[in-house]
Amino acid sequence: MALTLVVATGTFDLLHPGHVLYLERSKALGDILVVIVARDVNVRHKPKPILPEGQRLRMIAALKTVDRAILGEEKDIFHTVEKLKPDIITLGYDQHFDEKAIQEEMNQRGLKCKIVRIVEQEPCPLCSSSRIVAKILERFRGRRP
Amino acid sequence: MALTLVVATGTFDLLHPGHVLYLERSKALGDILVVIVARDVNVRHKPKPILPEGQRLRMIAALKTVDRAILGEEKDIFHTVEKLKPDIITLGYDQHFDEKAIQEEMNQRGLKCKIVRIVEQEPCPLCSSSRIVAKILERFRGRRP
Repeated sequence: MALTLVVATGTFDLLHPGHVLYLERSKALGDILVVIVARDVNVRHKPKPILPEGQRLRMIAALKTVDRAILGEEKDIFHTVEKLKPDIITLGYDQHFDEKAIQEEMNQRGLKCKIVRIVEQEPCPLCSSSRIVAKILERFRGRRP
Repeated sequence: MALTLVVATGTFDLLHPGHVLYLERSKALGDILVVIVARDVNVRHKPKPILPEGQRLRMIAALKTVDRAILGEEKDIFHTVEKLKPDIITLGYDQHFDEKAIQEEMNQRGLKCKIVRIVEQEPCPLCSSSRIVAKILERFRGRRP
C-alpha cells in the first residue's frame, strides 16, 4: 500500500494555533506531512518575516503533526514540490496562491497531485502573525518593552 | 519498571527555539514530559504575556516533545506539581525560580523530586520572547505594520 504524501507550505512567522490547525488538517488528509517553509527572499507578497528562515524552520520541525520540515528553494518555488511528488498539496485559508494556477503548473511538470484548500480557521483573536504584531505595537507604542 | 515523569514549567509567550531546546532537554531526562503553562494572572516577575494562556497552552501541546500540557493553578502554583508527583522538575536557564526554595517547598509537601536546571541555551539572536518583541518594535516603530 502506497503512503499518501501531503505537502503544506507557508511562511510560519510567529507561530500560532492557526498554523497548527492548518497543519493538523493537512496531515489528516494523508499519511506523511512534509512542510515547505518559505525562504526569506521569497516572501514578497506581505511584510518581510520577523523571524529568519532557520528559526521558522526549526519551529515547524518541532510540531507533532509534522513529519519533515524543509526550506523551499530560492529560485524555483515549485522545484521542491517536483522532487517530493506529493499526492496532495494543501493551501491555508488565507494563502494568496490560486489553486488553478498551481494545478496548471503541476500538470505542465507532469505531476499528478490534488490541490486542497483548508478553509477552516481558528476563531481566536491572536491566531494571526499580523495581529500578534499589532498587539505588540499597541502594548508598547511609545514605551520601552 | 516505573516511568520517570519530568515536569517543565514556563510562560512560553511567543514560542521560539529556546523553548523547544528547554523542553527537548527536559524530556531527555525521563520518559514522560508534562508541561505546566503559567496562568496569565501569575506572570508578575516580567511583562504581562502578549498571548493569552489558552493560546500559549495550545502551542505547547502541539510540540512533539510534549506528552501533556496543562495550565497551572491560579492560587497555589505548587499544587499542580503536588498532584502530578514528578520525579524531576526542570528549570530553564533564565527562569527566576531558586532551586533551593523549590526543593524546600517540595520537601515540606512530602514530595521527593529532583530539581534540574537546564543551562544550555540556543545561541540564536531571536531565541527570546523579549528580543522578538524588541525586533518588532524596531521594525515598525513610527509606521503601521
